Amino acid sequence: MNLELKREKGEPLYLSVYRYYKELIMENRLPPGSKMPSLRKCSQELKLSRTTIENAYLQLAADGYIISKAQSGYYVTDIATHPLLKHNTAGNTVSRCRYDFASSGVDKESFRFDLWRRYIKSALRQDERLLSYGEPQGELDFREALSDYIRERRNVLCSPEDIVVGAGVQNLLHILCPLIREKETVSFPTPSFIQGSTVFRDYGFEVRYRNKDSGVIYVSPAHMTKWGEIMPVSRRLELVRYAAAHNSLIIEDDFENEFVYLQKPTPSLFSLAGGQNVVYIGSFSRLLLPSIRISFMVLPPALLNAYQEKADCYNQTASKAEQIALCQFIRDGHLAAQTRKLKRLYSVKLKRLLEAVQSVFDAQSHIQIGAAGTSLALTLPCRISGAELKKAARGKGLRLQILRDTPDTVTVILSCSSMPAEDFLPACRLLQDILTQSERPR
Amino acid sequence: MNLELKREKGEPLYLSVYRYYKELIMENRLPPGSKMPSLRKCSQELKLSRTTIENAYLQLAADGYIISKAQSGYYVTDIATHPLLKHNTAGNTVSRCRYDFASSGVDKESFRFDLWRRYIKSALRQDERLLSYGEPQGELDFREALSDYIRERRNVLCSPEDIVVGAGVQNLLHILCPLIREKETVSFPTPSFIQGSTVFRDYGFEVRYRNKDSGVIYVSPAHMTKWGEIMPVSRRLELVRYAAAHNSLIIEDDFENEFVYLQKPTPSLFSLAGGQNVVYIGSFSRLLLPSIRISFMVLPPALLNAYQEKADCYNQTASKAEQIALCQFIRDGHLAAQTRKLKRLYSVKLKRLLEAVQSVFDAQSHIQIGAAGTSLALTLPCRISGAELKKAARGKGLRLQILRDTPDTVTVILSCSSMPAEDFLPACRLLQDILTQSERPR
Repeated sequence: MNLELKREKGEPLYLSVYRYYKELIMENRLPPGSKMPSLRKCSQELKLSRTTIENAYLQLAADGYIISKAQSGYYVTDIATHPLLKHNTAGNTVSRCRYDFASSGVDKESFRFDLWRRYIKSALRQDERLLSYGEPQGELDFREALSDYIRERRNVLCSPEDIVVGAGVQNLLHILCPLIREKETVSFPTPSFIQGSTVFRDYGFEVRYRNKDSGVIYVSPAHMTKWGEIMPVSRRLELVRYAAAHNSLIIEDDFENEFVYLQKPTPSLFSLAGGQNVVYIGSFSRLLLPSIRISFMVLPPALLNAYQEKADCYNQTASKAEQIALCQFIRDGHLAAQTRKLKRLYSVKLKRLLEAVQSVFDAQSHIQIGAAGTSLALTLPCRISGAELKKAARGKGLRLQILRDTPDTVTVILSCSSMPAEDFLPACRLLQDILTQSERPR
Repeated sequence: MNLELKREKGEPLYLSVYRYYKELIMENRLPPGSKMPSLRKCSQELKLSRTTIENAYLQLAADGYIISKAQSGYYVTDIATHPLLKHNTAGNTVSRCRYDFASSGVDKESFRFDLWRRYIKSALRQDERLLSYGEPQGELDFREALSDYIRERRNVLCSPEDIVVGAGVQNLLHILCPLIREKETVSFPTPSFIQGSTVFRDYGFEVRYRNKDSGVIYVSPAHMTKWGEIMPVSRRLELVRYAAAHNSLIIEDDFENEFVYLQKPTPSLFSLAGGQNVVYIGSFSRLLLPSIRISFMVLPPALLNAYQEKADCYNQTASKAEQIALCQFIRDGHLAAQTRKLKRLYSVKLKRLLEAVQSVFDAQSHIQIGAAGTSLALTLPCRISGAELKKAARGKGLRLQILRDTPDTVTVILSCSSMPAEDFLPACRLLQDILTQSERPR
């Protein structure tokens, strides 16, 4: 097998090998079912290290071009004959979505993968630490870094002992709900946080909306609506006083507090309440990557004892390696830098999205936008149902999130975080076309 | 700063730098509080790349020799003046434990870190996949690999759609319990699986022990006792029939089924029941690393519909990168190879532990050992309480797990998985000494 690898400037060697085979496969010169050369053979033929070939094969496998069969080798898949199929679909093949306004993902430019990889690699070299189960409450050094971080950024004063780490907010609620069962009722601002209300219902709580006479009041003060309204400090003080007077517990989910553009960040409920009767919850999926599953909660003194009695009953769910990496990442100042960068990026993107929407949709449309967040709400005249609109859009490669629909209008939430900015205008135009076509008599 | 790095043969460059500074710090030539040279300066002085210096600093930080202060730099910690303090303690300093019989960790030789790192690095290069939230049920390709794997190894026949991934068994129970609430009662074989019974109690189930007239029967058939007794196939068939006749749900936690030494693995309850009314649970913490938090469950048809209606309400907790890495690791045959290796390793270690125990403790002791697992139970004459013995042992650097104590005896569970084999004999002798000393009049 005589191979001449075409190298692109600055390209890592394994990627040149990857590209070589990818082309052969997509041009059907290595048809589906063909057996790939063994790592050893390929390494000899190309006069490259086995590690380089292995990395190339791993990447080809990860991208669905080849598949490995244990003790047999690698084989070419049928990807060349089904180019539109997304590799990772929930059992059904779904055609690619060209414009995705409903994504909760983050911007491609937002994350320095190379930097994060360095921290994960360092964490993965901690052989001794990784050979044992982690602390149920979360790694101590990580909790120390968190405690410093939230003291500085949100004026949340607590010791590392008050912090509980978990793999996502729901996991924290799984620990919290049994501790506060006697509260019996919980109030959410809107029905949209399904993951939150589901867990409370699972534990037998009665779930209400906007009802301050509840045992537990769950709020995201920096994200009161899907279009980024913030709870002003006057309302926060009012809520804190009311809750204290009625012995209610506030759960403050500080979701997206970092993306506040037009004003200084409002003090946390936790700090306004002096750390009493408020559980502060923070997470990193919007700051880092959604695939990094780490969140944490700060328990007030009243709940800390109850937690500590049961602490060993709950295994830690967050990856130890990720905790170790994130701890150092925070200590080295990268989380703060990342937050500043994202805030700039999203503030510019949200402005560009607003401009695109204003230029495409006329005065009959109504836009709601807050001082924070990464989405705006757009209400348009529309005579078909929200579900029908969503389906029609899907057929044209446009994914939408419907907030509300009435007989004459529909309200969509447009998220700017994941879609590239140059797609805003064409995506809005596509939406306008779909609406216009829906008006035509059948 | 004139540095001469002493290199050890074959040692990566960053480790030489690491060792250099570690020595300076431990010899107090860089006293606590000293500021470390900046990465740039150090890189210039040593004429090494910045990455090399950074990796060395990260390792020094990870091991507690230096600590970084954001926007300030790295500083030497007081580790040299407190050499016995473990870096990662739950807020209290605890002296090092020399012999740990109670550890649920795995053997240092058991895991090929370099191999796993390669798969994680490949997963971390999947930028696109990591920029979005994972599938609530778990990544499809991972569930496909799992489905093939358990079909082959445990004759558990299911499609990837029947599998739900989670960050640990408790997380799976958090999803399962609300689906089976009407069962009301659950039976465990013994009270020792606190993490299991706690979750059921949290959801309002009545928890019993060894009561087959329960709505849910939770068993670990390959780990019926802490000393590795296996449920024989006759009892498994009996249980399956009884449960079917009484409409009970069996939860089969196939914990440590891989470590069966003296016989062929017994068929899974799931396969004996034809996949009806059994939930099969598997996890990887004993096969890979306890710090990798991934488990999965196979739902029977009766529960699958109920799950799918709620599936989007539960966010996935397992790390996406770890799922991607493990998927490829399994497909490339490494999990099977790892399992074979561990089985050999633990079978030899358990035998050596038995020999050590038999040589140290006389005929008054009673040993229980099963056909599987990584522990044995040792009952000894003892006139102090289990708690007192545990405390006395702790003071001598020996960690014990007490199973039972009576006025005249104590039963300890000795785990062989984490302790190096050459420590078995000295650890047993130490235990004998502690017991002998406890007999002496005060």
